[in-house]
Formats: sequence, structure tokens, C-alpha cells
Amino acid sequence: MAIAPRGIDWAVVLAGGSGTRFWPKSRSARPKQFLAFGGSLPLLTETLERTAAVAPAQRTLVITAQAHLALAQAQSPGVPADQLVGEPAARDTAAAIGLAATLVAARDPEARLLVCPADHRIATTAQFATAARAAAALLDEDPARIVVFGIAPTGPATGYGYIERGAALGAREGIACHDVARFHEKPVRARAEEYLASGRFSWNAGIFAFRARTVLDEIARQMPELARGLAEIGAAAGGSGFAATLARVFPTLPRRAFDHGVMEGAPRRALVIPAYAWDDVGSFPAIARARAADADGNVALGQLIVEGARDNIVDAGDGLVALLGVEGLVVVHTPDVTLVCPKERAEEVKALLEKLKQRGSAGDRFT
Amino acid sequence: MAIAPRGIDWAVVLAGGSGTRFWPKSRSARPKQFLAFGGSLPLLTETLERTAAVAPAQRTLVITAQAHLALAQAQSPGVPADQLVGEPAARDTAAAIGLAATLVAARDPEARLLVCPADHRIATTAQFATAARAAAALLDEDPARIVVFGIAPTGPATGYGYIERGAALGAREGIACHDVARFHEKPVRARAEEYLASGRFSWNAGIFAFRARTVLDEIARQMPELARGLAEIGAAAGGSGFAATLARVFPTLPRRAFDHGVMEGAPRRALVIPAYAWDDVGSFPAIARARAADADGNVALGQLIVEGARDNIVDAGDGLVALLGVEGLVVVHTPDVTLVCPKERAEEVKALLEKLKQRGSAGDRFT
Repeated sequence: MAIAPRGIDWAVVLAGGSGTRFWPKSRSARPKQFLAFGGSLPLLTETLERTAAVAPAQRTLVITAQAHLALAQAQSPGVPADQLVGEPAARDTAAAIGLAATLVAARDPEARLLVCPADHRIATTAQFATAARAAAALLDEDPARIVVFGIAPTGPATGYGYIERGAALGAREGIACHDVARFHEKPVRARAEEYLASGRFSWNAGIFAFRARTVLDEIARQMPELARGLAEIGAAAGGSGFAATLARVFPTLPRRAFDHGVMEGAPRRALVIPAYAWDDVGSFPAIARARAADADGNVALGQLIVEGARDNIVDAGDGLVALLGVEGLVVVHTPDVTLVCPKERAEEVKALLEKLKQRGSAGDRFT
Repeated sequence: MAIAPRGIDWAVVLAGGSGTRFWPKSRSARPKQFLAFGGSLPLLTETLERTAAVAPAQRTLVITAQAHLALAQAQSPGVPADQLVGEPAARDTAAAIGLAATLVAARDPEARLLVCPADHRIATTAQFATAARAAAALLDEDPARIVVFGIAPTGPATGYGYIERGAALGAREGIACHDVARFHEKPVRARAEEYLASGRFSWNAGIFAFRARTVLDEIARQMPELARGLAEIGAAAGGSGFAATLARVFPTLPRRAFDHGVMEGAPRRALVIPAYAWDDVGSFPAIARARAADADGNVALGQLIVEGARDNIVDAGDGLVALLGVEGLVVVHTPDVTLVCPKERAEEVKALLEKLKQRGSAGDRFT
């Protein structure tokens, strides 16, 4: 008896990041996924509005750090409390996705999951939903597939992993689908330019679709240590000892990215190339590229006032930034901290944070 | 019968400024004189600690804007409430000093007043008090004198008025005293360099000493319209109708600087050249010059963290400023506004404020 196609069953949102690239806008107590960037909603809530077009909140899991559980709950309207899971320690995406697959499999091993990061922006929810249906169609055709979304590159970015396309699988829901030939690490600039010129590469945006059972089988085959831990956690799922088991076992899981630990070695991989504009919200300059500048090239989130200032990127938060005669800067204002640096050094903020941590308690309140 | 010398009788602190050069640290609701710059005390309170060495709080007058009266009161410990006077409108220093002389003369026309701005910093209270005694000595010798303090210039500043020395009067209290030959407006750079090279010029720091009666006589002679208004206010002094009279008459007084309206035309002027380090707190760069820089030339009020940043001036308020790879900037952080500009343009902040005012209510909350 054939099972009727039912699209994606569960949405999984990975909100475990502790990103420091947006300091001082992001803080250890409030990483990027819990902040609003220009939009009025925090990235997590934006992501959940998007996944709601794929699976209802009642079938949505949010995986976050235990320390951010209350924040995640407040920003996840409609998601049942027991479907917000706090990781007791950061163990990277193989463990996080494995945990999600384990928890969903405890209810329905055949469920199709769509997993996506909480800290990206996607222009069109409708196109996101279409791409998810295309992924679901690929899973219906071959339950052993693991599907990855690949973004059509708009430049020779060195900050993303790349996916090299294999044989065309034709369109599903009007969206081009391919086998995956190979995953590639973040390239150096010259290599990125080759990738771009070849026309055979997509950016790896970290969105995956698969059946719960398929990923657990692959984990069992490729990462048996992770599989053992997940099995122990899965056995406790839904029971009163779950929290204690999670707290004991999760920190012992191997720390590995899902791409490396599972995807690269998976035999039946497929690529969906959705048609939406995508922004990984990776740095202030990246955000600025997606927004309109004023006549002098200044881009602002929040209120900016300028006099003879050009090509600056500003995040004023709820306040105001005033620029007079400066050029090419990133200026981030928060109530207690202001950061100023040239655009091209915006990604070095970590060095400042390290210095701040060395100040001990005097610096801690700003991290 | 000779009157025994008694030093300065009354201190008058002029706290009426609405200075905009320190925006966003200063705001319309809290101008510079009510702010702390590096020191732990607001400039007004610092000034009153200094004048306390010259005259007791019981014989101290504070003249401020009516809108800032409560703030001034909070920052003027020990000064009797009825000796804090709120100007109903800004009418410049001839009216403010005339008002002070009028109020003191109502109690004691022969009283010697020392008048000083609330928004300067002076390194040594002891030397300030010595200079005040020297001024009092000059007033004892000749009750018709008006004494002005002149600061020995440390460079060809174009932001101050200059005083050209006349004949030497010898030392009082160990401090050089002279006749005043001439007052000069703020000079252009080349002229300022000539002044400096000549060795005959002092900066006009806006500190004056005189007997109440003398200044009122000079006002009557040179600014009869001001004298008429002051007489009306003086007649109401100490009575229940004082506030109403002040509110009605003060805004009608001519708007003129004391230097131009009174000093320039006064026949018996003397110059005291005190030996203290002085800072008019005129701009962020001016403040920075008076403070120690770190090894990379960065000067900070409050907490600063840097990585490869040089020669910047920072006011972090109670927060933190983080600078990465920038040079020669002024960065002023407040909880709701951050300003960034090159050092050499720090005095153009007014242009930003004007733009902000054009935004109406959206901008008003930041002015």
C-alpha cells in the first residue's frame, strides 16, 4: 500500500549558536539568533514564521543552548514547551541534528524533517516552502536520501562551504534538483572564483531534509559513538528521567559538524537549489549588502544622522548614531557598548572580545 | 577710617550655558556644566568646591537657566536655595553678571565679587584662591577697578579672546598684575601666533573681580537700558514679587557679553595672571590634551578597549567603547546616542544637531 505524499512532517530549528561576530549587538546572554536585524522580529522568530509554512508549530523542534532556553521559549510562540530542547553543552551540528532525529523518531521514525539554522534570513517564505516540498518529494521517491539546500552563489565568497553538483535529477515543484558530487570546505579566494566561474557549485546554507530513520542509520554507520549516546537519550525521551539523561549523556557526545560527520559519507545525497534570496547574517557588512544605502553609501539599521560621512555601516539599535566626516566604518551602538572599526576588519571583533575577557569581571559585563 | 582688607566677599558662578559642543554627552536638558569630564564631580560642583576657597557657600550665587534650576540645586551643596537664580531667558553675560551684582549690592554695595564660569577646569584650587586674593588686593587699593584673570597662553589658540597687557602693577600675593591695554577678539591663526610670539598677551578666561557698586556704575554709564532693568529687578530683590519681576523684566534686557558691554569701556581695568593650569573644557580634543594617552596615543574617559587603534579620543560614559583599527577619531558613547567624527572636525557637531532638530519629535529626544 503506497503512502500518500505528505510533504515535510517536522521542522527543526537549530538555535544553538553563541556567535561572537556581532558583538556588541550580540552578547553571550543573547546571541545573534535572538536579535532582530532590521526586521522587527528576532531571527529565531523570523525562522519559525518561515518553517510554519512547512510544518505546524505543533510539529516543530527548537534546539538551543540550555542557557538560552527561556529566551528561545519567549521567541517561539506556539511551539510546545517540551519541543524546545536545551543542549547542556555545545556539541556541534551532528549531535544537535542527531538529537532532533532521535526525538522525532521516538514518535514517528518515518517522519520527514527539515532542519534549518535560526540565524539566516530568507527573502521569500513562499519559495522556502516550495523548496521544502521539492525536498519532501525527493524523500518520497527515495527514503534513503539526505537532501541539502544549495544557494546559487552571487560572488566568490570565502566564508561558506561549497557543494559541487552531480547528475541532474530534474525539477521538483519547479525547482532544480541534483545529485551531490562533492562537498568542499570554505575555499581561498582564487578557488572560490574557480567555483563561481564553473557554474557547478552552490553555497552550503546548512539546510537539510531527511527521514528521521535515515539519518539515525547513517549516524549508526558513520558515528557509532554518537549513535550510542543518542540511543540512550532516545530511550529516555518522553519520560521523567529525560532531562537528567540529556544532562549526563549529551556533553559526552562527539563534537562534529553534520556536513563532515554524516553528509560527506552518506551514499544517497540530493541537492535542491531554491530560488530565494538568502543572507547568512554573517557580519555587519553582509547585512549591509542586503539593504538600501543612502545617497552617500551609508547603510543603517536604526536611526542614523550624517554630515559629510560616506560608505559607513551603522547599527544604532534603539538609539541614534551620528557620523561626521568619516568613511568606510562599521559603527555599532548599544546602550552600554559602542564598536567602531573599518568595514574590512569587521570580522576581527573576536580579538577585542578576547581582550575584554582578560579584564575579568570588569570586562565580563560587556561580553 | 580705613576698611580692613577682607578678600573676596561673594563668589558668583555663571552656569547658564546651553553648550552644544559636547553633544551627545551634553544635552539641552543637561549642558556641559552639569556633566563630569573625567573627574568624578560635575563641572558646576567642581567649580563650587574651588570658589569655596574664596567665599563660603553662604555667600555664593549661582546663576543658571531657569530650566536647569533643579539640576543646579542638586549640584550646589550648601548654597542657599534663594542664592540659585534661574534666568527666565538667556541674555548673555552682561545681564547675568549685572544681575549678580544687583542681588549682592542689595545686601552690600561694597562687596567684592569674584565671577567665574561653571564649565572650566582649574588644576589647583590653592592657586585659584591665591589669584582671587591678589584680585581682592587690587580692589582694596582702588575700589573702581574691574579685574580680569588672564591665562598664560600655551599655544596660538584661535578659540579664545586675548587680553593685551599694559603697565606692570607689580605682584600681589606673588602673582603678576598689570593694567589692561586692550581686549582682542578671537584671532585668526596667524594673528594668534603673533600674539603668542609677542609675550604680551593672555587668554581671557572670563573670570572677573569687582565691587558690586563699581560694575553697576559702569553698567549705568555704558548700558543704561540694562541698568534700568536691573534696578527694577533689584528693587524687588528679597520680596515676594521677585520671581514675577525677574520673569517679566529679565527677558527684555539687552543681550551682550560682559567683555564687550562693560570691560572694554571701563576706565580702570586690571589684569591678574594666575599660575594655574586651566582648561576651558571647550571640546573633546581640548579635554584629551589635558589627559594621559595610552602607548598608542588613545585618550579615554571611561572604559576603552582597542586593537590596532591609534590617536583616538573616547568618552565612553558609564559604558565601553571598542575600537578596532581606526585612527584619529573622536568617539562619544552615551546610552542612547553615539557620535563618531575625526578629531579635527569635533567642533562641527552643531551641524549634526541642526539636522537632528529638523527631524522634529523623532530627533528631539536625542538633542
